[in-house]
Amino acid sequence: MLKAVCIGMLIALLLGLGASRLEVATGESAQPRLSSQTQMCVGCHRSATPGIVSDWTTSRHAQTTPAEAWTKPQLERRISTPLELISPELRTVAVGCFECHSRNIDKHADAFEHFGFRIATVVSPADCQTCHGVEATQYAASKKAHAHDNLLKNPVFTLLMETITQRQRLDEHGQLIAEGSSPSTQHETCLGCHGTRVQAKGLKAVKTAMGTISVPDLEGWPNEGVGRINPDGSLGSCSACHPRHSFSIAVARKPYTCGQCHLDPDVPAWNVFKESKHGNIVFSREREYNWEAVPWAVGRDFQAPSCATCHNSLLVDAEGRPIIERTHDFGSRLWVRLFGVIYAHPQPRDGRTYLIKNRDGLPLPTTFTGEPATEFLLSPQEQQSRQEQFQMVCNACHSRSWIAGHFAKLDQTIAETNQMTLTATLLAARAWEGGLAKGLPGNPFDEEIEQLWIKQWLFYSNSIRYASAMSGAPDYATFKHGWWNLNETLQQMREWLKLRRD
Amino acid sequence: MLKAVCIGMLIALLLGLGASRLEVATGESAQPRLSSQTQMCVGCHRSATPGIVSDWTTSRHAQTTPAEAWTKPQLERRISTPLELISPELRTVAVGCFECHSRNIDKHADAFEHFGFRIATVVSPADCQTCHGVEATQYAASKKAHAHDNLLKNPVFTLLMETITQRQRLDEHGQLIAEGSSPSTQHETCLGCHGTRVQAKGLKAVKTAMGTISVPDLEGWPNEGVGRINPDGSLGSCSACHPRHSFSIAVARKPYTCGQCHLDPDVPAWNVFKESKHGNIVFSREREYNWEAVPWAVGRDFQAPSCATCHNSLLVDAEGRPIIERTHDFGSRLWVRLFGVIYAHPQPRDGRTYLIKNRDGLPLPTTFTGEPATEFLLSPQEQQSRQEQFQMVCNACHSRSWIAGHFAKLDQTIAETNQMTLTATLLAARAWEGGLAKGLPGNPFDEEIEQLWIKQWLFYSNSIRYASAMSGAPDYATFKHGWWNLNETLQQMREWLKLRRD
Amino acid sequence: MLKAVCIGMLIALLLGLGASRLEVATGESAQPRLSSQTQMCVGCHRSATPGIVSDWTTSRHAQTTPAEAWTKPQLERRISTPLELISPELRTVAVGCFECHSRNIDKHADAFEHFGFRIATVVSPADCQTCHGVEATQYAASKKAHAHDNLLKNPVFTLLMETITQRQRLDEHGQLIAEGSSPSTQHETCLGCHGTRVQAKGLKAVKTAMGTISVPDLEGWPNEGVGRINPDGSLGSCSACHPRHSFSIAVARKPYTCGQCHLDPDVPAWNVFKESKHGNIVFSREREYNWEAVPWAVGRDFQAPSCATCHNSLLVDAEGRPIIERTHDFGSRLWVRLFGVIYAHPQPRDGRTYLIKNRDGLPLPTTFTGEPATEFLLSPQEQQSRQEQFQMVCNACHSRSWIAGHFAKLDQTIAETNQMTLTATLLAARAWEGGLAKGLPGNPFDEEIEQLWIKQWLFYSNSIRYASAMSGAPDYATFKHGWWNLNETLQQMREWLKLRRD
Repeated sequence: MLKAVCIGMLIALLLGLGASRLEVATGESAQPRLSSQTQMCVGCHRSATPGIVSDWTTSRHAQTTPAEAWTKPQLERRISTPLELISPELRTVAVGCFECHSRNIDKHADAFEHFGFRIATVVSPADCQTCHGVEATQYAASKKAHAHDNLLKNPVFTLLMETITQRQRLDEHGQLIAEGSSPSTQHETCLGCHGTRVQAKGLKAVKTAMGTISVPDLEGWPNEGVGRINPDGSLGSCSACHPRHSFSIAVARKPYTCGQCHLDPDVPAWNVFKESKHGNIVFSREREYNWEAVPWAVGRDFQAPSCATCHNSLLVDAEGRPIIERTHDFGSRLWVRLFGVIYAHPQPRDGRTYLIKNRDGLPLPTTFTGEPATEFLLSPQEQQSRQEQFQMVCNACHSRSWIAGHFAKLDQTIAETNQMTLTATLLAARAWEGGLAKGLPGNPFDEEIEQLWIKQWLFYSNSIRYASAMSGAPDYATFKHGWWNLNETLQQMREWLKLRRD
Repeated sequence: MLKAVCIGMLIALLLGLGASRLEVATGESAQPRLSSQTQMCVGCHRSATPGIVSDWTTSRHAQTTPAEAWTKPQLERRISTPLELISPELRTVAVGCFECHSRNIDKHADAFEHFGFRIATVVSPADCQTCHGVEATQYAASKKAHAHDNLLKNPVFTLLMETITQRQRLDEHGQLIAEGSSPSTQHETCLGCHGTRVQAKGLKAVKTAMGTISVPDLEGWPNEGVGRINPDGSLGSCSACHPRHSFSIAVARKPYTCGQCHLDPDVPAWNVFKESKHGNIVFSREREYNWEAVPWAVGRDFQAPSCATCHNSLLVDAEGRPIIERTHDFGSRLWVRLFGVIYAHPQPRDGRTYLIKNRDGLPLPTTFTGEPATEFLLSPQEQQSRQEQFQMVCNACHSRSWIAGHFAKLDQTIAETNQMTLTATLLAARAWEGGLAKGLPGNPFDEEIEQLWIKQWLFYSNSIRYASAMSGAPDYATFKHGWWNLNETLQQMREWLKLRRD
Repeated sequence: MLKAVCIGMLIALLLGLGASRLEVATGESAQPRLSSQTQMCVGCHRSATPGIVSDWTTSRHAQTTPAEAWTKPQLERRISTPLELISPELRTVAVGCFECHSRNIDKHADAFEHFGFRIATVVSPADCQTCHGVEATQYAASKKAHAHDNLLKNPVFTLLMETITQRQRLDEHGQLIAEGSSPSTQHETCLGCHGTRVQAKGLKAVKTAMGTISVPDLEGWPNEGVGRINPDGSLGSCSACHPRHSFSIAVARKPYTCGQCHLDPDVPAWNVFKESKHGNIVFSREREYNWEAVPWAVGRDFQAPSCATCHNSLLVDAEGRPIIERTHDFGSRLWVRLFGVIYAHPQPRDGRTYLIKNRDGLPLPTTFTGEPATEFLLSPQEQQSRQEQFQMVCNACHSRSWIAGHFAKLDQTIAETNQMTLTATLLAARAWEGGLAKGLPGNPFDEEIEQLWIKQWLFYSNSIRYASAMSGAPDYATFKHGWWNLNETLQQMREWLKLRRD
């Protein structure tokens, strides 16, 4: 069977399959040359996995070489590693299957022999760094890159995660017995976004249309979480936002992409955006916008922002003057962390939030009563400076007066929701102190009143802050997951305590 | 008044209204001839109900005749009944008002005289079968076609439906008195998707711009549920997915269509899709896709799948080689039923699930403790064979290794969520046994602890399984309607029992 | 610094900046002349706030003069104030920055001097009335225009609002102490949609790229709520639906716009639309529709309706014959108010619902037991007449028989959900009478059982009625926020009472 396949590949080569045979629907005039290895890949995979090949065919990677990419003016450039640092054999061929899947192969624990080539299943940020050095470096410093570790190297968050996803059975006395959460469930819940640890456990045989072949036996795979720990030791997954084989900048700029992970009830950025004026305009005029343009011109290419506009894109005005630089360190434009664990707080200095220690010795950015772990967080001066940067984006479409009113309101909302979290925490503390529930150093996350408490900070306070920050979604802040819920839950906690004390 | 109308129709005919006068925005060169009857219909209805006529004008039905449809190559064909079985007067005219609304008229209890024509209000799958025989036959075998009966011929499900939609009043002693659910409410809740029984109760007079006319007095109308029982005795409604008078294949392929019924909290396929990588790409690139092409080419016409892609469309690769056949028996590619009633289980062998009997004598695919009614469900071998078929679709864009990892995870998730349902069931059983609630043979669906139990299997376990199956939506499986909720509800059930026992 | 700015403006003028330099992507042949003042504005603001200028450039305002607008045939016209009532200096220039921001300036408490011009920050409906007189007059009569007052001049609704958005702290005895809600939180919750009172508190200095300048210090700003009280005393905000500076009719017609405020859980019009057949078709075919056409032709410009179609647009059939007139009094086509406060009831006669008094002397359209405040509400005859008007829209695409079946079902649903609200109210009354909770004349909205009661009418009954009215969204009416929830909550109220009485 394998022999037949190899003959198939040979025929493909003899037929001259390659760049000239790929139909590309982009209107760019000349197709770049494919490397001989990529021609071999395509020769079989256009039958074996036709969707992958077709998807890649629509990509810029299929239509440009690194050398050509470097001929663009600086603001239009998507490549950042200096050409002289890119190995010569890559410079003048299209970025094809082999170019990426064979990169840094000696570092890949998932490397394997595949029809005469040594390739890896997982292409990592360290591989993309070959051409996109600035982006990879920025990303490596972000909280996103450390999203796996920020859960699993932080014992408090690990306990929270394992409590939420645990299996339970009933014993012979009718008692609930917790049985922990499985790697499989962690994979498709928390680590679906945070990223799994992908580990190669030798090879396994799989049946394909081309016969039985050996491929790496991978644990934690498939996964595209932003903090994925790759078999080469690198962190992250570029395809979380530039999915599959088209590596589209347009897809990364569309809010649907961010919406896969930043959504309700815990991080309702997507939900709030949808209900905001920004979202209203984007969805109404989406098809008129130019989602591909680099740089991205406010007013000319779009009239209202998507997530990427404010958080990471390179923006210019309609006449091409720069407004703000591109960044792939996604928190770097932010001064405050709305996502309350358990209180909103200044952004951490370091992407590795598991390094934080608060005054109680816990790896949390605040204490349970809200005191910030100041030395690990931005100073007021740094916050101020970041906010001024950010407002450059707002100012493209809003007056200074508008902006000032908006952010003053956000500050007030942060203070009020933090206060409501404190009230809920003090009610939970009454249960802990009264022996009605067991808090720290035990598990403060598994009993009924604790679940009420968690919803206050993880769902409702968070939602209100996101709604405030995006100047929209009043219903979110009110009834959906907002003040209604904050007050309803306080009442439920009060009644819970009352019933059990009487 | 009626006389004036008839004169209007005459004038319309004299003016030569017909095919040549219909503006069609499709670019197909020649308009087919309209039958003389349809010309009469259009003559009045372009004023009476202009939206219907305009909508139909955009349809393929208005632009093709059955004879022309049969000239297409096999894979491009949308007609399946052999031309010689289609009556001669239909073959060379467009598929217009009269062609459909007069079909099999003697079988239609909703037939009536309308300005000289005998027509029916409801066009049924038996009428569409005239030209679409293969699709109608496949559909008739599906669970969809039997969706009404699967609720109403199953006493357990009927009880569940009636309990959920019941009215309640307070008697003079402050006791809640259940008063059953009304046909009207059943119509717009469960039967909105499952389909009503449409019954003709003679004629009634309605005022129209053309005077008072007699039309059938229909019970259970309007309705487009997939298991609708039609006045001709047939089952289903093609316009559930090919809505109104454009009968568009594009609309049926868009996820918005499936999303009308397959949505949260009980069947959150649409919600999970939206948050999955497939959904992310589809929504981001929707306008670039060719939603009309038959056959539908992976990679060429689209890069990521909608619901129809995996579940029923005819797919080819970019070079036209078939990947999988079209089916209108919508469960026929599936091996497992994620929708837990009350446990996930192998797909039933027969679309009429009300025929199932489990070991306890109930018409359910499993017992309350999860034992499957094996003889009514697919065998492991049949499951295996269906899964291999289905993976042909995945394999168009994913490697075998990716697919294996994905489905192994799904198997584990089915086992874990079934285990969590069992734990909840055993807690409910403690209430039943302790006399704190009344279970079978009474109503196990109407008390507070029973409502907690129902949410475990109908909302949360289901949601987690859908999230797993579509390899996306980690937030769904975690916080939205996922493991968080499973564990929160178990705790609530435990506290409920504790408070009432002490 | 200011000197430099003025020089910049001078240079701009000398360079002849103006209409001919604005790139407009609309294909209309000739650009209208800009007033000299607007040329000055644009000269600086194309750098200062480039997004605003670019957005306006895409607008019809930038491309037409009032005089040209009046040359259109009546049905195509978007201007309604007779040309002779529009001041001569406005008639033949484009509608630019200065034309709107300097309108009626003496009435504007937010007026200020800005680089030699006296302008206002907030452009109000009274300013838009200059050209759009009919629309402004209609709007002023609507419930929308009075949305702020309808909350804040109604003491019952004010109490509800303040209870829902209140802060709470824990005192030294562990008691929850309510601390009222802040203006800031009211601004971004209820008043986000209902509208704030915008008040000018003198001037403040803001730093801009052009130096420190003085701008009005505005309270309640930014806000685009429909009932905003403007610094000129007028009510409302046109940019709630025609956002920012493109003033697009297309955006106002898209359902995303209405969806910012009319959404779940209290007013789930948007959510129900999304899951309805209308929504399904609109989202599937959105890009094929002509969202700009005036008048809007059923069948030709679109095949399924968005919110605006049924509620306020001017509609014609495909041949241009009028179906229904445009209105900006948004409730004026409606006969029944589904939004239950606390029961569904006939539409109020007057947009100022705070003027209503029910038999118990409360400013509510019904009593707590459902008796309508008849004299303030439409009579059955008026209801009938409005419904017949409304059905003209339905009839464009649906037969009379279909329509009759649909609205009969809605009537039944209103009766049933009102009955369920009564049942819940009587249960709450048992708590009030038994001293388990404090009702009127105290706060009937702040205790646990009262919160359960509120959800019955504000979330679930409302949702069921919207689902019924839009003939779709069966899942909404069942499980999402429907009959399941109504019955679940009744059971919770019953158990709440039982536990506390025993």
